[in-house]
Amino acid sequence: MQACEKMIRVATVEACRFMVDCLHAAGANREAAEQQAKLLIQADKCGHPSHGMNRLEFYVNDIISGACEPNNKPEVLKETASTAWIDAKNVLGATSSHFAMDISMAKARETGVAWVVVKGANHNGMAGYWAQKATDQGFIGMAFTNTSPLCAPTRSKQAALGTNPLACSAPAASGESFYLDMATSAVAVGKIEMQLRKGEPIPAGWAQGPDGNETLDAQVAFDTKCVYPLGGRELTSGYKGYGLGAMVELFCGVLGGSKYGHHIRSWSHTSDGTPADLGQCFVAIDPNCFAPGYADRLTDCIQHWRNLETLDPNLPVLAPGDKEKAAVLKSDQTGTVSFVQQQIDSCLALAKRLKVKPIECLQE
Amino acid sequence: MQACEKMIRVATVEACRFMVDCLHAAGANREAAEQQAKLLIQADKCGHPSHGMNRLEFYVNDIISGACEPNNKPEVLKETASTAWIDAKNVLGATSSHFAMDISMAKARETGVAWVVVKGANHNGMAGYWAQKATDQGFIGMAFTNTSPLCAPTRSKQAALGTNPLACSAPAASGESFYLDMATSAVAVGKIEMQLRKGEPIPAGWAQGPDGNETLDAQVAFDTKCVYPLGGRELTSGYKGYGLGAMVELFCGVLGGSKYGHHIRSWSHTSDGTPADLGQCFVAIDPNCFAPGYADRLTDCIQHWRNLETLDPNLPVLAPGDKEKAAVLKSDQTGTVSFVQQQIDSCLALAKRLKVKPIECLQE
Repeated sequence: MQACEKMIRVATVEACRFMVDCLHAAGANREAAEQQAKLLIQADKCGHPSHGMNRLEFYVNDIISGACEPNNKPEVLKETASTAWIDAKNVLGATSSHFAMDISMAKARETGVAWVVVKGANHNGMAGYWAQKATDQGFIGMAFTNTSPLCAPTRSKQAALGTNPLACSAPAASGESFYLDMATSAVAVGKIEMQLRKGEPIPAGWAQGPDGNETLDAQVAFDTKCVYPLGGRELTSGYKGYGLGAMVELFCGVLGGSKYGHHIRSWSHTSDGTPADLGQCFVAIDPNCFAPGYADRLTDCIQHWRNLETLDPNLPVLAPGDKEKAAVLKSDQTGTVSFVQQQIDSCLALAKRLKVKPIECLQE
Repeated sequence: MQACEKMIRVATVEACRFMVDCLHAAGANREAAEQQAKLLIQADKCGHPSHGMNRLEFYVNDIISGACEPNNKPEVLKETASTAWIDAKNVLGATSSHFAMDISMAKARETGVAWVVVKGANHNGMAGYWAQKATDQGFIGMAFTNTSPLCAPTRSKQAALGTNPLACSAPAASGESFYLDMATSAVAVGKIEMQLRKGEPIPAGWAQGPDGNETLDAQVAFDTKCVYPLGGRELTSGYKGYGLGAMVELFCGVLGGSKYGHHIRSWSHTSDGTPADLGQCFVAIDPNCFAPGYADRLTDCIQHWRNLETLDPNLPVLAPGDKEKAAVLKSDQTGTVSFVQQQIDSCLALAKRLKVKPIECLQE
């Protein structure tokens, strides 16, 4: 964040209340609205605002247009001892993802590992939230989702894959845990949005302009919606990020029979009522099925990484997830989350439109 | 390869014969030697010479020093319906990897997915070879291995993780398939070796020097053995590659109870007799457990990617694995593999040392 930009603080419970009210006013039942709000607020708490309240209006519009049907019930279409294929029935992302990860964990408890694929899904927020759900129950969790085409395969002038995140989390000993949640693109498009809101350019290696060449202009990048895969250009191994994004698509839309890759609709504030029909994948692995001492070894790694010597003592090595945990801790200590003014303005407009109580900001 | 560098062609069967003879002379039984030679020659055929005959002497030395015990039998230590934990008993990488992936596929046939972790393993060549083994039988295959510390976690001056490759392959329709085999570091250290052999510098974003800063000097990079994670420096999302490498370690050494991360020995031509005790992971997924039409969707993606418009018509978009398949086809058409002179010289010296028939090159 730019140092000069004023952040507006909101009580966490109030931000949740507001999101629940909006989703409920749009047509979602209370439980669905609460699960979705809890998912979004976690992104704001852990320092990924692009996946937080920033997305609220998208979900609301999808409900109002009929693109999302929040009161349906997801359904298991096919299953084996360790797999399930699920139709999300177009509910909110949180609803179907809880359903799917619960099934994945139940099967992993019996057989050691489970692989669950969902079709007919809506955007399910931070992928890491779903991996963490499994880790909270003692599992190694993984979550994948496809997204609208925003990432250019290496050498391509145009996007053909989503930013297709993968997440993996794992419980460790001594209160530690491993948490990785990453877009397989160089950046998530939400990060370009954030630069745009801040009025700043984007770094090299993030995005292509409409001619297929690299751009540093946040507005051009946001309008073009074509980011590089992780690794950037071909010379810096961008084809690996492309391969990873393709692998995530394989696990999601290709296995799930939802929309996939270049067939996925673009997602914007103005929903035209077409369902997203995303594919998502939820994996649970019981670490007790392998070598004893697992949790201690993971903690040994985490602590070793943190203690490595750095070029700049003010920039210590972080274990995967440290940044998010520190942000959540800070948020929990004050019971607040912070937003840019533009986000608050959007919320006030949304409150008016939906006739819900406006979000209340804290006076500084 | 540098255009001016002369490549020496060898009949593929002769290169295999030579490797089998060497491994057998060192002490491996015929079957183990043949499986290992087949693994190595595939890397040379598909254009990854760093993982091919280039590694033969390492394996030979490990057998002679007692670090590798090629005539042991791997053993299942613990299993559930969909998982197994295996002790490789220090055999050659090919032997234990065939054993593990066979078990993974047998379980996936019953339950839909299987997750198998191996400890006490030796280097098992190209990770993609093991994913492909499952794909040859109709499965989505994944393979992971930890390796000696060669990759610096973001901000660290020193290496603490291996280049920890992940591989994923999948069968598609119309003779197509998906094949991804990538180090989670910006590059595999073998690529630096290859630049060194060619007398060329390395690109930016590949490796750190002994002071923790980036270096472009192939000799310095080879001596330091500290590459960046995929994504390069922090500004270009290198922390994602670091997270991926850590995830691979989680699946391999941390779950397997082998050596892991910073505890793994370095691997060189001069084996001191200490077993590598690597961890490896083998996953098989039955794609028929999910939505019908899977293979057609995957082929649709592959063909769509190849047909995307590019900046340079001479550089078409490749589907993951196209480069390797083209190289194998070319090698199969001539029945030959090509090596740099220095590789042939090493083989001639090795033949002398082991008293096996020298490798015979084709006259051009």
